[in-house]
Amino acid sequence: MTGAWQPGDPPGKRSFAFVDGGRPFSLEGGGTLAEVQVAYETWGELAPGRDNAVLVCHALTGDSHVAGSMGPGHPTPGWWDALVGPGRAIDTDRWFVVGANVLGGCQGTTGPASIDPRTGRPHGSTFPAVTIRDIVRSQAGLADVLGVDRWHSVIGGSMGGMQALEWAVMYPDRVGSVVLASTTAQASALQIAWSHIGRSAVQSDPGFHGGDYYDQPAGAGPHRGLAVARMAAQVTYRSDAVFAERFHRAMLRPLDFDLDPLFDVEGYLDYQGMKLVRRFDANSYLRLNRAMDLHDVGRGRSGVPRALQRVRARSLVVAVRSDGLYPPDQQRRLHRELVDANGASSWLELDSPHGHDGFLIETDDLAPHLSTFLEEHR
Amino acid sequence: MTGAWQPGDPPGKRSFAFVDGGRPFSLEGGGTLAEVQVAYETWGELAPGRDNAVLVCHALTGDSHVAGSMGPGHPTPGWWDALVGPGRAIDTDRWFVVGANVLGGCQGTTGPASIDPRTGRPHGSTFPAVTIRDIVRSQAGLADVLGVDRWHSVIGGSMGGMQALEWAVMYPDRVGSVVLASTTAQASALQIAWSHIGRSAVQSDPGFHGGDYYDQPAGAGPHRGLAVARMAAQVTYRSDAVFAERFHRAMLRPLDFDLDPLFDVEGYLDYQGMKLVRRFDANSYLRLNRAMDLHDVGRGRSGVPRALQRVRARSLVVAVRSDGLYPPDQQRRLHRELVDANGASSWLELDSPHGHDGFLIETDDLAPHLSTFLEEHR
Repeated sequence: MTGAWQPGDPPGKRSFAFVDGGRPFSLEGGGTLAEVQVAYETWGELAPGRDNAVLVCHALTGDSHVAGSMGPGHPTPGWWDALVGPGRAIDTDRWFVVGANVLGGCQGTTGPASIDPRTGRPHGSTFPAVTIRDIVRSQAGLADVLGVDRWHSVIGGSMGGMQALEWAVMYPDRVGSVVLASTTAQASALQIAWSHIGRSAVQSDPGFHGGDYYDQPAGAGPHRGLAVARMAAQVTYRSDAVFAERFHRAMLRPLDFDLDPLFDVEGYLDYQGMKLVRRFDANSYLRLNRAMDLHDVGRGRSGVPRALQRVRARSLVVAVRSDGLYPPDQQRRLHRELVDANGASSWLELDSPHGHDGFLIETDDLAPHLSTFLEEHR
Repeated sequence: MTGAWQPGDPPGKRSFAFVDGGRPFSLEGGGTLAEVQVAYETWGELAPGRDNAVLVCHALTGDSHVAGSMGPGHPTPGWWDALVGPGRAIDTDRWFVVGANVLGGCQGTTGPASIDPRTGRPHGSTFPAVTIRDIVRSQAGLADVLGVDRWHSVIGGSMGGMQALEWAVMYPDRVGSVVLASTTAQASALQIAWSHIGRSAVQSDPGFHGGDYYDQPAGAGPHRGLAVARMAAQVTYRSDAVFAERFHRAMLRPLDFDLDPLFDVEGYLDYQGMKLVRRFDANSYLRLNRAMDLHDVGRGRSGVPRALQRVRARSLVVAVRSDGLYPPDQQRRLHRELVDANGASSWLELDSPHGHDGFLIETDDLAPHLSTFLEEHR
């Protein structure tokens, strides 16, 4: 069990596209993939003028299933279903919406669990390093396949926001606007710290086998390490206030004093850990966390302010008041730097207690701002 | 290697006392220890009137070495050395200061790595659950040995503050005042969550052997799990602002894109993790974290407000503005509840960026408040 989507799994309504014609794909870190296939989903219709396409980029453990119900191939409903659909904020009656699984991921797009055509076996430890820029370049390949020369908007939160920002810097002529939610121009020391801790938990698990665990018997793999990594991440995504309200000191069973899980919050974390293990591949988790650490739009571009001068897109920068992992100060700085660079940035701070996950949860608050922003510069 | 102090290790200037005359010690959770020995250090002289004794309680991974330099038996200087000494805030020319390693710990006081006299082997997995109340009762036994009927003050931060608060509730006639820094009347869901994550990391390590790892070859033990637990804890003890200032995106070596530690903050965390492994025992880490989870002064006392009505001590409640693990709201609530209960509580919020560890770091800011508080009700 790797938690990765495998050929033969129910595909849902995913489609698959080879980018760059299925030719070798060179990566920023120097590696090469023999081919890159991107799994994606679409909603709505591309207008004859091809000017109504919206790309929604997912966060670390997301996938292409932005909208829609659960069903075969989709163990969960769309992760932004409340915002994407007919008549919703990102109105699929008006916009042609695309969601794509990221390069290096494990939900259909080429990643460590994919078969390397050069060997006929999963990449595992040989999968090369990917960066946010590599992910965006693979998405540009997908846009070519779809006939989208220019996105009306590229939208994302957290790692999705990193992609949206890189889109605006790498392809300024191909992006009309960006929504940058709960994200940053460069990963902070705190974000790298948490990433390192999750990585350490996975790599310490003897089931990791240096990344080559796919040949192990079913049920083997760095499951406990990945679960620990996820539990820690889950806490950093939420807040003290929400945990206090939801769990306080409620117990799973009558009070005792031993070391087994006793409090509701412990049961919740165990559940969240195992839930991720079932749906996600540990190698993808490591690679994508590293891509986030390496995220720095200023790298090789003489720093962040200079990099942002390339941006022509209008931007909406969104923060969540209670986010301790990507604190509002980061987004405020990004907003100011975008204003300095091209003057076309709007600011929205959500007054939510939900922490980093607020951008996934506060859809009611986000909806009117999103729909207005998309409409304003149609 | 267990990281626990062992008989035969250089004792520094520690002393050792059997409490309750070395008779069996019954614990709140129902277990019994054949004997309890407490390792402690003292500074200054007990006055003839025995009215100048101050107990300083340590936090999770602390020890009896509150003050003094490093040297044989003391791999680090005293953890509050800046505050405790001749002419310092807790002036050892005036006060008889006592620091004691907690029950269940690993720096000389009876704990999981101690030899169980009933078997001649380390307790390991058979060590019973301990609570903050058990720790305080063992300290009361130490006070009896020292001839201290009543503490002028009991002082502590974090887990040390939990002990100080329990002292005031369990032995209202034996405590003149308490300093409660960066602590809480009951562990929050967030605190329990982090505790559970650390516990999961240790227990997932195959070197843990269910807690019976002392017989393993030298170098064996749940070291990687304990290191992961410590790394996560270390981040929760600090703050985004301090990490940003100290590490930002500085790198250990020229940029590359692989998974090995690249950023300074990763090297720092690895170092902190291994440093704890060398000096601390994993079983103690689990037991003491659990004791903190179970901390609730209201348990069996009809709730927190009723429990606090027992308190006769004056209190100084200290918060650190940037503490995300024990946020100031918790201490403010405790302060108000103490005011409601007996009217004798003072409030101090340190305007520090250092997060939970602020009470260990901001000694200059804390010093005048501490010395004044100790003097006021002499």
